[in-house]
Amino acid sequence: MLAVTILGNNSALPAYDRHPTSQVVTLDDNLFLVDSGEGTQQQLVKYRIRWSRINYIFISHLHGDHYFGLPGLLHSMGLLHRENELHLFAPAPLKQILDLQLEAASNQLSYPLHFHPLEGEGVIVQNDKFKVTCFATKHRIPCWGFRFDQVRAPRRVNPEKAIEYGVPAAFYDRLKWGENYTTKAGEVIENEWVTNPGVKPLSYAYCADTIYDEELIEKVKGVDLLYHETTYLKDLETRAAMRFHSTTNQAARIAKNANVGRLLIGHFSSKYDKLEVFEQEAIEVFPNTSLALEGVTFRAPLK
Amino acid sequence: MLAVTILGNNSALPAYDRHPTSQVVTLDDNLFLVDSGEGTQQQLVKYRIRWSRINYIFISHLHGDHYFGLPGLLHSMGLLHRENELHLFAPAPLKQILDLQLEAASNQLSYPLHFHPLEGEGVIVQNDKFKVTCFATKHRIPCWGFRFDQVRAPRRVNPEKAIEYGVPAAFYDRLKWGENYTTKAGEVIENEWVTNPGVKPLSYAYCADTIYDEELIEKVKGVDLLYHETTYLKDLETRAAMRFHSTTNQAARIAKNANVGRLLIGHFSSKYDKLEVFEQEAIEVFPNTSLALEGVTFRAPLK
Repeated sequence: MLAVTILGNNSALPAYDRHPTSQVVTLDDNLFLVDSGEGTQQQLVKYRIRWSRINYIFISHLHGDHYFGLPGLLHSMGLLHRENELHLFAPAPLKQILDLQLEAASNQLSYPLHFHPLEGEGVIVQNDKFKVTCFATKHRIPCWGFRFDQVRAPRRVNPEKAIEYGVPAAFYDRLKWGENYTTKAGEVIENEWVTNPGVKPLSYAYCADTIYDEELIEKVKGVDLLYHETTYLKDLETRAAMRFHSTTNQAARIAKNANVGRLLIGHFSSKYDKLEVFEQEAIEVFPNTSLALEGVTFRAPLK
Repeated sequence: MLAVTILGNNSALPAYDRHPTSQVVTLDDNLFLVDSGEGTQQQLVKYRIRWSRINYIFISHLHGDHYFGLPGLLHSMGLLHRENELHLFAPAPLKQILDLQLEAASNQLSYPLHFHPLEGEGVIVQNDKFKVTCFATKHRIPCWGFRFDQVRAPRRVNPEKAIEYGVPAAFYDRLKWGENYTTKAGEVIENEWVTNPGVKPLSYAYCADTIYDEELIEKVKGVDLLYHETTYLKDLETRAAMRFHSTTNQAARIAKNANVGRLLIGHFSSKYDKLEVFEQEAIEVFPNTSLALEGVTFRAPLK
């Protein structure tokens, strides 16, 4: 299962009650927080995300609208007596800022916070369930995008067969990941008797802040869901380039050429009151585009 | 004119859509921001405060719920091309944190930011209109309260006399501060012909975070409006003391013994859903008490 819940979709300045960038990515049982603009903890509460379950945080770059909500979130996790390890992937200078803030507050976090500085490109997390890769985007300061891949597709349960062999529904989640079921009588039900192979592992790529950059196409090739920033409408291509941002058409061109399943667009400039035109312009180039609206969860593949 | 607009009234953890501590103090033509918890810039927009007019910011201490909204605010002021000087009074360690954040973003502010580290007690700003004093409160880390005093009471315009002498209403604000009016014919109308002396300069004291501390009484003596934290209800006096916070009754006792005009209470613990009991308990000791509700502006003296 792959889903992305939008907590903020605006660029730097507060406007129209839109919040700066932050997203929760759900990949099967794992919750990842991607960027953490000011107000992220309030948004997590508002949209009832179980944030104690977030064990990985990824920060793309150190413009304030992508991380000024992080210190509050980390401190609140401490106030709530979190004990689980938390892994934070971010540009190196953030470490000293967080350390100084903790020292100034005379605080110690209740949980182990592992800081992993982003350097170069490549795999940054890998286990038997998922793999996270970081890649460079072209922005005014060092900036990274992230790609989340299921390592293998979950198997598809065949309910008729499962019932026939007496496997309870509560065990279906474990069937998906290849486990055999043992009945109370001690009989082993082999996984492949009651499941079919999964089709294709799911993948999501988050393109952070970036100028239009065709090198991104290879990096996000074929993902089921792509987030690409669209700070400006297509008529402001020159301004976008000057500020190392992208337009609607440019984001859609990346999506089209990378042959992705679905495109999410966000990071809208505060100069825009209404957002519908963003979607219209992107759809001209790549039909399966959605606005990254706050509070909405986007799934891939679409049902 | 003295008014306090509440932007946030909650303690550290986000809860019930209440925000962490922040207030705007209006003293005649001057706007001061006092503390700046996460989300302050959103709250300034929501409550339509003209934040370009804030030239002084005071930060009581470096627990995140009192300053994590400051970096976003300072950066946004830059994005809005602010040019006026901004004076920031705060505990010394904040300087390095702000500098590192600007450096990491490769940003330069568009305006001069003057950082004044808080040290000791005494007058920190004084001009012919107002005086600001800081005083120590007793908290887990170094913490300051602030007292805002009109230097002199504005004179009271006598409208009958002003009309008789032909002074236009648009000039009344300047009459209040002692100016003479010169008619188009060149005749000087002496200020005292059309005004009466002001009664008493107005004053406001902000008691930040503090354990119950009778030394505060002398520091806030006789102010027209007092803000005192009440993190807990009166039954949790022991917990309040352990955490260097105060209860309803304790805040009200300070107000009563300091003989203030009106008491505002805030910094409510996230454990409390409803706030009415805070007011009820404080009123038992000091009747003229109000809850510091978000978005509400409190004036002194009461009309």
